[in-house]
Amino acid sequence: MKIHAMRTASLLLAAGLGLAATASWSSESLQDVMKRRNLSQQDLLAASKTYVPTGKRDEFVAFSSGGQSGQVIVYGVPSMRILKYIGVFTPEPWQGYGYDEESKKVLAGGKIDGKDITWGDTHHPAISETQGKYDGQYLFINDKANPRLAVIDLRDFETKQIVVNPIFKSEHGGAFVTANTEYIIEAAQYAAPLENKKFYPLEEFNEKYRGGVTYWKFDRKEGRINEKESFSLELPPYSQDLSDAGKGPSDGWSFTNSFCSERYVGGIEKGRPPYEAGCSAKDTDYLHVINWKKAAQLVAAGKARKINGHNVLMMETAIKEGILFLIPEPKSPHGVDVTPDGKMLVVAGKLDTHVSVYSFDKIMAAIKAGKFESKDPYGIPVIAMKDALHTQVALGLGPLHTQYDSKPCVAYTSLYVDSQVAKWNYCEGKVLDKISVHYNIGHLMTMEGDSVDPKGRYLVALNKLSIDRFNPVGPLHPQNHQLIDISNDKMQLLYDMPIPLGEPHYVVAISADKLKPGVRYKVGTNSRTDKPHPGMVRAGEEVTTRKGNKVEVKGTLIRSHITPETIEAEVGDEITINLTNLERAQDETHGFTVSTYNVHASVEPGKTVQLKFKADKEGVYPYYCTEFCSALHLEMQGYLLVKPKGWKATKTTLAKGTYTEAEYKATVKKVVDTQAIIDSVVAYITSVNYKDFPDVVAMVDDAFDQLGKTKGLKEKHEAFAAKQDWENANLWAEQIWQYQVKTADLGLRAKTYLEQNGAKKVK
Amino acid sequence: MKIHAMRTASLLLAAGLGLAATASWSSESLQDVMKRRNLSQQDLLAASKTYVPTGKRDEFVAFSSGGQSGQVIVYGVPSMRILKYIGVFTPEPWQGYGYDEESKKVLAGGKIDGKDITWGDTHHPAISETQGKYDGQYLFINDKANPRLAVIDLRDFETKQIVVNPIFKSEHGGAFVTANTEYIIEAAQYAAPLENKKFYPLEEFNEKYRGGVTYWKFDRKEGRINEKESFSLELPPYSQDLSDAGKGPSDGWSFTNSFCSERYVGGIEKGRPPYEAGCSAKDTDYLHVINWKKAAQLVAAGKARKINGHNVLMMETAIKEGILFLIPEPKSPHGVDVTPDGKMLVVAGKLDTHVSVYSFDKIMAAIKAGKFESKDPYGIPVIAMKDALHTQVALGLGPLHTQYDSKPCVAYTSLYVDSQVAKWNYCEGKVLDKISVHYNIGHLMTMEGDSVDPKGRYLVALNKLSIDRFNPVGPLHPQNHQLIDISNDKMQLLYDMPIPLGEPHYVVAISADKLKPGVRYKVGTNSRTDKPHPGMVRAGEEVTTRKGNKVEVKGTLIRSHITPETIEAEVGDEITINLTNLERAQDETHGFTVSTYNVHASVEPGKTVQLKFKADKEGVYPYYCTEFCSALHLEMQGYLLVKPKGWKATKTTLAKGTYTEAEYKATVKKVVDTQAIIDSVVAYITSVNYKDFPDVVAMVDDAFDQLGKTKGLKEKHEAFAAKQDWENANLWAEQIWQYQVKTADLGLRAKTYLEQNGAKKVK
Repeated sequence: MKIHAMRTASLLLAAGLGLAATASWSSESLQDVMKRRNLSQQDLLAASKTYVPTGKRDEFVAFSSGGQSGQVIVYGVPSMRILKYIGVFTPEPWQGYGYDEESKKVLAGGKIDGKDITWGDTHHPAISETQGKYDGQYLFINDKANPRLAVIDLRDFETKQIVVNPIFKSEHGGAFVTANTEYIIEAAQYAAPLENKKFYPLEEFNEKYRGGVTYWKFDRKEGRINEKESFSLELPPYSQDLSDAGKGPSDGWSFTNSFCSERYVGGIEKGRPPYEAGCSAKDTDYLHVINWKKAAQLVAAGKARKINGHNVLMMETAIKEGILFLIPEPKSPHGVDVTPDGKMLVVAGKLDTHVSVYSFDKIMAAIKAGKFESKDPYGIPVIAMKDALHTQVALGLGPLHTQYDSKPCVAYTSLYVDSQVAKWNYCEGKVLDKISVHYNIGHLMTMEGDSVDPKGRYLVALNKLSIDRFNPVGPLHPQNHQLIDISNDKMQLLYDMPIPLGEPHYVVAISADKLKPGVRYKVGTNSRTDKPHPGMVRAGEEVTTRKGNKVEVKGTLIRSHITPETIEAEVGDEITINLTNLERAQDETHGFTVSTYNVHASVEPGKTVQLKFKADKEGVYPYYCTEFCSALHLEMQGYLLVKPKGWKATKTTLAKGTYTEAEYKATVKKVVDTQAIIDSVVAYITSVNYKDFPDVVAMVDDAFDQLGKTKGLKEKHEAFAAKQDWENANLWAEQIWQYQVKTADLGLRAKTYLEQNGAKKVK
Repeated sequence: MKIHAMRTASLLLAAGLGLAATASWSSESLQDVMKRRNLSQQDLLAASKTYVPTGKRDEFVAFSSGGQSGQVIVYGVPSMRILKYIGVFTPEPWQGYGYDEESKKVLAGGKIDGKDITWGDTHHPAISETQGKYDGQYLFINDKANPRLAVIDLRDFETKQIVVNPIFKSEHGGAFVTANTEYIIEAAQYAAPLENKKFYPLEEFNEKYRGGVTYWKFDRKEGRINEKESFSLELPPYSQDLSDAGKGPSDGWSFTNSFCSERYVGGIEKGRPPYEAGCSAKDTDYLHVINWKKAAQLVAAGKARKINGHNVLMMETAIKEGILFLIPEPKSPHGVDVTPDGKMLVVAGKLDTHVSVYSFDKIMAAIKAGKFESKDPYGIPVIAMKDALHTQVALGLGPLHTQYDSKPCVAYTSLYVDSQVAKWNYCEGKVLDKISVHYNIGHLMTMEGDSVDPKGRYLVALNKLSIDRFNPVGPLHPQNHQLIDISNDKMQLLYDMPIPLGEPHYVVAISADKLKPGVRYKVGTNSRTDKPHPGMVRAGEEVTTRKGNKVEVKGTLIRSHITPETIEAEVGDEITINLTNLERAQDETHGFTVSTYNVHASVEPGKTVQLKFKADKEGVYPYYCTEFCSALHLEMQGYLLVKPKGWKATKTTLAKGTYTEAEYKATVKKVVDTQAIIDSVVAYITSVNYKDFPDVVAMVDDAFDQLGKTKGLKEKHEAFAAKQDWENANLWAEQIWQYQVKTADLGLRAKTYLEQNGAKKVK
């Protein structure tokens, strides 16, 4: 038996050798597999429609609310693979969200009555639109439980802003954008007094409780909501629900439906019929029809009242100015969905079997003619349902939401009780097809299906119950998002996707090619403000300063060391650590934590983050990189030393290692051999058109950055060797090799990438 | 145009009618799809091996660490669909984890130095074993950043316990179980003083800093770690890393490897070579070989020292008693993996190209013969590598971890730098196959691949970098878990799975049929203690009590109302809300929150939870069910009324609705019609062997529970009708219908289930 030498530079040569990876077939045939796995021909067809092979991309990217997880779920269609959970209302440590100072400021924007709210009940995501088309720039999502709205930038998939609704106590019906994202619409849910922290008894429900709808002004240049230019409309206490904005001919108007327009107050514990009886007793609720463009002008003209410092257009004004109307709608509808051409609105009442198609032209005609059947108890004009309807179509039990196809007049509606999706024609009012889903579908989604330009192809059914669909994982089941092929006359079920975290309420999907996210930041970026970070330093500028009991570190992260490797403090010091990731290659994220101090940062290439904590306990606390960033990631470590006050060192030298001249010479040889490999890789890379591959350019930049760090080290180790200080001679030579290894690693990755992506020889 | 009547009972009949769901083929052929989607024959074969059709189950269930998300990720193999994220070290609101009182107590077990730690860096999950086989009862997982260990019960997939390591400041190498789960092994990572909150300077690193390994005693009957019967072994400051327990012939021993046995202290900011150089300078590190059975006996015999109240067996004692040995191992290994037969251990040093196979027999022989090559600086006997090795095999660059096949002698090792998996024979020492992965693989996993009984079939490569594999989602990329078919001689890549949240470190997978999770709790269960909850009440027993400024609610949740529907309080009251979910049917989870008070509960069928908060602000705060639990879920609401101190009601009656006798009669007719439908469904269900279907029995129980609530309501609405109180007459009749709708909904679901699952006629 031979004990092999453990490390030689020549091993790197093996990277190009070794056994070739197999590209050959398995010995089992397709027929064998189908028989063994009991797959039908239809299963195989479905598999072929959803499977995305390695290295290929999904056609659409879906953004789903995470329900009570307070997050957004990003997944690919048709593979239904989840690509990311984005932290929004709930702290999430992997992303450092709520654990670094930058993201803490975003979350602090969501404080209510001065207190942290550490979760959210997210409901409706909306992608920013330009002329009614998804533009892929921003994503908005609401929190029903604690009425708030968040802005996510789709350049980096990070939450940038949270705003608190100043007058609501809950809101189900956000976010919906107007056709050019002028406003983001957010409707109240359970009526309550609009004044904050003001109690009125339930006996004064009709007089003092109110609903409403808020129009958040979006400043696209800043990428933030402008709270001061936002406003709300006071509405009756009708439990407003979902909204939709008009588009095309109906642009400038918005539509909000409602339930419990009975204004019923329950009290089962006191012997009263519960809410479910009283809120469902009547045949219809009210669709609110609002001219938001004129509302904005009225607010600008000073016609709003300030409530909690926020502009609220009162019902009285809205009625007088002719911008607010009601239309009876089927009982307890779950959605109002404007057709792609903006000419119709579809509403389905869950306790009815029909969808109702309203004509925007008819609504406008009735308003113009002043033709109203009545006024509601608050004096709002009510347009007769028959004067607004285009048609009604019987679809099945528990119709909820409607989405649109790329084919004209084709719509899809979810049927909750029937557990089906109905495909139907809203122009002609006829049913075209139905498909069973598993089970109890809430929302549904087609590709860009609520924009002016739906893409057809796929539909996702957001089923609330999955019962027997998946391997059991305890009493709390996943939801089931089912992918359905809608490109043919008959719908075909393709895939069951369990939702592992959260109870998604609604999803939107965009063509993948409309998204242009970045893969790294400009060096020194505060990713939450998109501005240069004052804590940024470049390599060699790292510094630790102390002012009184405040210790501030400006450090850097690069494969595979943290600078500094020691932070010294006294008990009680306030520690601020700024860290900049110096990498440029994709994926080279570093993480950072200090043992037991409850801080964590995710530092993607170019990002600068700040961590703050009080060193309130004496002791020795390791810190380390929390991302498996390179072969040496475990060695990417350091120590926070928290000394008792007034501690004085007695021993001032570190223990020496034992190193020999022979070891030094072996290390030097290894360095020389490795450089030859690097030279050969560099020769290959520069022999092809690598500059045409931005990913490769980033890797090459990082590689030369690493190699650049070897400058002066040869002289250094040789000087130590001359003094026969074999430890320092060895370790500085070894450090050259560490830089070389990372240079070679990057170089080999770049080489592989170029070979696999058709790089061409250049002169 | 006809305006349809909005609600009639006969609509429910439509459930059995409507358009039949299509089972027909799409018009596109398999060949068309392959051409359109550019799929190769090999892609199709891969798709056929990973695709799991609707309603079918995965063969294996994998439990992955979530890395810095502080969670556990559960996914199915071969579909690679994520089934659940389990909250472990990080609060997670969907599960109410950290938001209800029961789970807050679990998280409080993880406090360090009296403070909450709200995240974790999870690394190595381990499934409980019986005789070295996975038994599917418990899952253990560690937190590297804040050295802790958690126990998850696989009956309900909930975290039950978190314990804090009393002597470490970080630990990478947990959790690993002994062959009968007597102990869970957790090794230190970065050396630090063992005494808590004790500072020693780095200059005293060799003398005062220590590593170690902790053996947590598991009480299987209680399903909890017994902290008092747990103990640790003091080890040199060598940066212990991963461990594995012996099995079969090596049962009773455990093995822990290490890096930075140079005991190097960095300081790049002071001009010293960084850790990465000093910790990698030598050729070998040390594998620690420990007789844990004898160690436990020594502790029981009082030979341990108490440090921070915890039993620690000091090195001196361990050496004297002959239970601790070292063997040189290839530099900076990432794993030590005992073979299924317990006869060999495989170690791979990441800076070497070889895997080293050690023979347990040879190790024992050397120990028995007292044949040691030296002692380490702490006096621990060192067995010569050559005296312990069975063989070494050159595999490639950056070998890390090894897993085993069901075929004898076959192992798989991850190659980080090469981005490959090597299949090799550890008995004969030869390479069998290699496959490329994308990219930079850390751990890898085969099915039950670290037990005595590996299942073969699939391998999962845990790749750290995904670069170009998926649609871009910003600078923070998902990791890529790739599924590989290992059932044939040549490995075949089947599937790329992005990890959307967290950076998984290690995964374990178990045959799905070994898991027997429950789908509901015994009514009134505290799921975190598995004991009856004192806050539990049954239907009709709901009560709200006040003692001083303490308001306590004992309430219930059932489709579709919360009892009580009003909670009254004064500003400053301390509110306690206990809620029991009365449902029995699967999936009928209810959620609960109170607007802006930052509480949330997930209440699965049978569970009782408690929420506590201080009503510190005046106002009206809606509460509601946060799960889409039924068609009427939006109406599952109530109000917390927080009155100013001393508030007196002036108006004491609620507003009346307007109802007519005609409406009442229509409602009564609807109730009669609906009952006929229910009767017909009941007739069907009782005509077949429904009792053979537990899921149906649960639904039928719930259905009759709902129907039972109508008792006395007929008399009630008739009495109100006699008094011409049409509101109360109407609403109580309506409430009968609400109960009927849920009865019918459940009945129809049961009927569909029975029809689809081959129920048979009975007499």
